[in-house]
Amino acid sequence: MVPQSDNVNESRLERGRRLLAEIDGRAGQNVISALVDIAPDFATYVFEFSFGDIYAREGLGLREREIATIAALAALGNAAPQLKVHIEAGLNVGLKENEIVEILIQMAVYAGFPAALNGLFAAKEVFQARRSAGESALPGHLSCVPPGRPSAPGV
Amino acid sequence: MVPQSDNVNESRLERGRRLLAEIDGRAGQNVISALVDIAPDFATYVFEFSFGDIYAREGLGLREREIATIAALAALGNAAPQLKVHIEAGLNVGLKENEIVEILIQMAVYAGFPAALNGLFAAKEVFQARRSAGESALPGHLSCVPPGRPSAPGV
Amino acid sequence: MVPQSDNVNESRLERGRRLLAEIDGRAGQNVISALVDIAPDFATYVFEFSFGDIYAREGLGLREREIATIAALAALGNAAPQLKVHIEAGLNVGLKENEIVEILIQMAVYAGFPAALNGLFAAKEVFQARRSAGESALPGHLSCVPPGRPSAPGV
Amino acid sequence: MVPQSDNVNESRLERGRRLLAEIDGRAGQNVISALVDIAPDFATYVFEFSFGDIYAREGLGLREREIATIAALAALGNAAPQLKVHIEAGLNVGLKENEIVEILIQMAVYAGFPAALNGLFAAKEVFQARRSAGESALPGHLSCVPPGRPSAPGV
Amino acid sequence: MVPQSDNVNESRLERGRRLLAEIDGRAGQNVISALVDIAPDFATYVFEFSFGDIYAREGLGLREREIATIAALAALGNAAPQLKVHIEAGLNVGLKENEIVEILIQMAVYAGFPAALNGLFAAKEVFQARRSAGESALPGHLSCVPPGRPSAPGV
Amino acid sequence: MVPQSDNVNESRLERGRRLLAEIDGRAGQNVISALVDIAPDFATYVFEFSFGDIYAREGLGLREREIATIAALAALGNAAPQLKVHIEAGLNVGLKENEIVEILIQMAVYAGFPAALNGLFAAKEVFQARRSAGESALPGHLSCVPPGRPSAPGV
Repeated sequence: MVPQSDNVNESRLERGRRLLAEIDGRAGQNVISALVDIAPDFATYVFEFSFGDIYAREGLGLREREIATIAALAALGNAAPQLKVHIEAGLNVGLKENEIVEILIQMAVYAGFPAALNGLFAAKEVFQARRSAGESALPGHLSCVPPGRPSAPGV
Repeated sequence: MVPQSDNVNESRLERGRRLLAEIDGRAGQNVISALVDIAPDFATYVFEFSFGDIYAREGLGLREREIATIAALAALGNAAPQLKVHIEAGLNVGLKENEIVEILIQMAVYAGFPAALNGLFAAKEVFQARRSAGESALPGHLSCVPPGRPSAPGV
Repeated sequence: MVPQSDNVNESRLERGRRLLAEIDGRAGQNVISALVDIAPDFATYVFEFSFGDIYAREGLGLREREIATIAALAALGNAAPQLKVHIEAGLNVGLKENEIVEILIQMAVYAGFPAALNGLFAAKEVFQARRSAGESALPGHLSCVPPGRPSAPGV
Repeated sequence: MVPQSDNVNESRLERGRRLLAEIDGRAGQNVISALVDIAPDFATYVFEFSFGDIYAREGLGLREREIATIAALAALGNAAPQLKVHIEAGLNVGLKENEIVEILIQMAVYAGFPAALNGLFAAKEVFQARRSAGESALPGHLSCVPPGRPSAPGV
Repeated sequence: MVPQSDNVNESRLERGRRLLAEIDGRAGQNVISALVDIAPDFATYVFEFSFGDIYAREGLGLREREIATIAALAALGNAAPQLKVHIEAGLNVGLKENEIVEILIQMAVYAGFPAALNGLFAAKEVFQARRSAGESALPGHLSCVPPGRPSAPGV
Repeated sequence: MVPQSDNVNESRLERGRRLLAEIDGRAGQNVISALVDIAPDFATYVFEFSFGDIYAREGLGLREREIATIAALAALGNAAPQLKVHIEAGLNVGLKENEIVEILIQMAVYAGFPAALNGLFAAKEVFQARRSAGESALPGHLSCVPPGRPSAPGV
């Protein structure tokens, strides 16, 4: 599966930037900004490899890719900030809140009740933050994140 | 979301048995059989809780549930037999081989290249076993598993 | 081992509620309350499966079950809130503070010194919170948790 | 808790050797032997630290220590050989087969169904090996392990 | 490899105290202090085993040992306080900031991008704290940690 | 740190192929071959990202990078085939057998004794295989691997 792109001349970096903005929205941009003064090259890898190579691949839709990512991060249970970014990303690419809750509940079977519980409480935080920002009805990448909201070190 | 069921009188155990047969097929039955002489009650919990309660829930389709399970098991990387059962289960509920490959490749981003690689080699084994059993075109739960095939301790 | 119960007519849900209250005390109730607006069904599974099915089983006492749970959560090292709830639960069902310390020290051998250290600091927090609430001599499920104390997302 | 010892002059190494033989039996000795040509010093640390320091501590009995170890290793799910050694060790220090099964079933709640299943299948193997060696009624450290039985790299 | 020591009469405890002070500096001392009222024996094991036995071994330099430790803790992803202590320890024994960044970036390949990201943000915190304390040019174990700085529960 | 290269016109893929051959030797090539019929694109990512991007970076030598990788894989404990490939890779880039043993012993402190033990037994296998192939004195990437030797699914 070669990466999907309308523009054959788009570089991996350009394609990755475009997809990260579409999927992770403002939360993703915040992570990249936070990397600038410690490991700017790593920001480039996030754009190029994670988004420009992997998320850009055909064969699985973005909604399905976020199901996989939310499940994996909740099961691993050691990457809370990234889980929150991807719960938000899931909403951005078309998952409904109750579908995300279903994924997290299911993780009780494969990774135990604590992993499911911690995932559910992460989702609760994300859902509430979106509602209190009045953004629940908007696609996340169009929303205006209030300045005081801490940048989650996600991706 | 109350559990989906055409038959309101179906017990959790009955519903779980039905769903495990539909999803995991013969491989799932083998696990249950292997439990009989060590922990028969645990087989009941697999039926009742994992399948009768969780997989029976509305709100997410079986195909999407298997995306989540395959992602989680590949990311955890410490449950190879169960990963194989669910790669087969994914095929049973409508995932295509190349979609499962996409899920596993994506795990390189979230759990590292070794987790993705070991997942891909597990998929290769499952795909080959199905082909050598001439069952690639049949739904897994209808297929005839040759007697010599070891029962994977999955679920 | 069929679940232990004086009352043969007690449902899984009722038995689970009773056992969670006995074992986890107020901290457990707080978790359940926190689930209400995100995934109330999951609260039901905690009652029914974790407590109504598993903790209710004969064959191992509650004190021994909490030894197993504290060890597992400290070893996994990715479920700090649940570890604290079960350190408290351990005290509720008869473990002494120094016995819990022994379990956590032992985890250095099986999960490394950081897992043991983080477990010991979690225990220190729980022991201090109980002492400052003047509850060290009372069974946890009878104690009065001050309103300002945050509800740990445990179970 | 100072280490328990009838003999105040016993060194950490001597105490560890004595306890490893008592707890892990022949399986433990096999591990130590397997270390000789790769890292003999590590065998010394196993004796001195794991057994001479930790298992020798007062405050928790050996039966309770093995409950903690079996739970932790089953939950981690990435140390199958050591889990088997400690299932055998549990039997050596007084746990009954059904108690070990209870510990492993309980891990489904905290580490997921695959971790519990893989633990149960490990226990099934250990129980069967003991029975086929006619040693089920003997304390493990007195038993005669047949020469063909592979040395599990446990401890 | 017998432990390196100029003084053949130095005990494991003395050697461990000396090495922990040299490697972990003030942050390590803070951990030990925090253990005093919960598990003082565990502080002794940290000195004796981790530092007196392991870090004291010949065959690998302290700089290389810290490469291994930083990599392992970042990959495990469930011991943030200890990772920070060892990022500081790495600087104390001669690793440059950019070398630590390289180790953490590399973890993306083996443990996934979230593990690498969380490691990089931990490093960013440590580097900034050292700079704001004006200690970046001093060996850590000679530096004066301001009293308000929280004791990281590391080692 | 821009990737090191004598040849500015070398692509990521070319640079990655060159470095994988230099570092992982024949074992690495076997992994790539095993990927061809399941996920050939993933082989490309291994070349391009893992080796062409990350191992090619300046700022840390290959010997130090392998210290980090061996430590991480042994600590994670769920990627045995990859650990073996990197123990061999470590020898290829200049680590001595006893240095690898030191790294693995040290993991007992951070990931527990079972992780260290399983790492040591993996090293024992690799060291023995090399000796029985009479290749201990040759750089791994020049060695002739006997045809019967199974291709480890590493990288």
